[in-house]
Amino acid sequence: MIAVDVMGGDRAPHVVLEGGLAAARKSVPVAFYGPGTMIERWLDAKDPVWRKYAIVVIDAPDAIDMAAEPVSAVRKKTNSSLVRAVASVSAGKSAAVVSAGNSGALMAAAALFIGKQEGIERPAIAGFLPSSQGKVLVLDLGANTDCRPHHLQQFAHMGAHYVTQVTKNTRPRVGVLSNGHEPGKGNVIVKEAHQLLQKDTLNFIGNVEPYDIFAGRVDVVVCDGFVGNVLLKTMESVAEQVHTHATARGEMFPVRGGALLLGVKGVVLVCHGNADAWAIEQALVQAWDMTHRNNYK
Amino acid sequence: MIAVDVMGGDRAPHVVLEGGLAAARKSVPVAFYGPGTMIERWLDAKDPVWRKYAIVVIDAPDAIDMAAEPVSAVRKKTNSSLVRAVASVSAGKSAAVVSAGNSGALMAAAALFIGKQEGIERPAIAGFLPSSQGKVLVLDLGANTDCRPHHLQQFAHMGAHYVTQVTKNTRPRVGVLSNGHEPGKGNVIVKEAHQLLQKDTLNFIGNVEPYDIFAGRVDVVVCDGFVGNVLLKTMESVAEQVHTHATARGEMFPVRGGALLLGVKGVVLVCHGNADAWAIEQALVQAWDMTHRNNYK
Repeated sequence: MIAVDVMGGDRAPHVVLEGGLAAARKSVPVAFYGPGTMIERWLDAKDPVWRKYAIVVIDAPDAIDMAAEPVSAVRKKTNSSLVRAVASVSAGKSAAVVSAGNSGALMAAAALFIGKQEGIERPAIAGFLPSSQGKVLVLDLGANTDCRPHHLQQFAHMGAHYVTQVTKNTRPRVGVLSNGHEPGKGNVIVKEAHQLLQKDTLNFIGNVEPYDIFAGRVDVVVCDGFVGNVLLKTMESVAEQVHTHATARGEMFPVRGGALLLGVKGVVLVCHGNADAWAIEQALVQAWDMTHRNNYK
Repeated sequence: MIAVDVMGGDRAPHVVLEGGLAAARKSVPVAFYGPGTMIERWLDAKDPVWRKYAIVVIDAPDAIDMAAEPVSAVRKKTNSSLVRAVASVSAGKSAAVVSAGNSGALMAAAALFIGKQEGIERPAIAGFLPSSQGKVLVLDLGANTDCRPHHLQQFAHMGAHYVTQVTKNTRPRVGVLSNGHEPGKGNVIVKEAHQLLQKDTLNFIGNVEPYDIFAGRVDVVVCDGFVGNVLLKTMESVAEQVHTHATARGEMFPVRGGALLLGVKGVVLVCHGNADAWAIEQALVQAWDMTHRNNYK
């Protein structure tokens, strides 16, 4: 099953239920975590024969607010849709979890219940951004607003490892996002991360600028979650301004389905807070594909 | 006169000379600072009657490298095109200076020769970004990669003051760029800047996201120069990818002419390192308009 956090996101629960139902109709086994009676009533009204799909409903009556302080919310709301959905992965009941909820809480719950990978201090949100040469993995897209240089180094390892797993590329080019190509460019954290990565075993190509991402001159780009979030949201905003229709349903930006939380020992997909039903559906399909193909465990 | 740094920029001196000549043909008085003989030869070859325009050539044989360490370059290369062009403003010979050169060196030279405004610790590069409702002033776009919270507060004052000068808006809405609207969102610097701005006299509307800029929900946006540079370059890259022709000559992004260095007691326009002749021309026309209208001194 793929667990979905029904109460997560600005437009929950309806768009999450819609997206989940759409994925179930495409043969993705979906476990809805949220207020059980509400979910069953919604499904009954929407599709009287929903029980013929691989859908299960698990009652988790609480919800974590989008603005809640992540760690305390996860500790207190043990019966929330977010915590129960994440915990189902660690319990082996679900292969993956999809949530458009409070991303800090999702990360905290994943670290607490699923556990961090060996040597990783901070999980990071990774997403493939489009380039003229294919796709470029960028992380962190928003999980860690303040990073130390060695966190960026860890992100580089997490990202390179993931790209190697999902593509044929065994030696991905790794860059650190900066305001110029010269090694001396960047803020204090970026300059130190550059030094660390130069001594590392990765295929480090140095500083990269936003243009290098879209031109496909790099495979993995690391940055702190504040900068990554500005990058992602600027990209989306401009594309929407320039070309509304192409992007409205995410055709241009595949990250809109779900971004992956890297660094935890399980598959956690993070959707936008304002994800629509289509984005939730895509994330569920993506989670199912990832957990049932051999190239990702 | 408007002073132009002939040796500044990735494509100097030719595109700078071309842009300067084009501006002179539009009645902008242009002072070319750079290697005198080379400049005069170029002008003779390009337009034998160039002496009929308001063009002067001032011999400044040295050049500051794009990658040079700013402060020491400015101190050592006193006879460089950049330093001489900036110094001409403080000497009262030029009304403004335009440069596509090393932006750190330009800032250092401006602070050293023209002087910082009262109460401003760090000048910042400001540019108007396009929105569906007009234009939004964003600063810093790249002068200061590492900022303290009170620097962002000073940027807010500089930006609000400038917007009030050049538009009819006497109470511009000021926002701080963040990864979410809630006051608790942001990195450490942004959160503290938010607190400072809340107690300030400005019309502070709180945290804004990239989408708010393009939707015109704010008039002045402050961020550190690292984040601002990523924002600007992402915007330009995506727009170019999506809609190459509309942006090729800057129609979409007026910032491409020249961004303004705010916080110094004179008019300093910063062009992109890879500015083309059209961008240089626009910056010169812009500088001339600014210094010969009453709304900016």
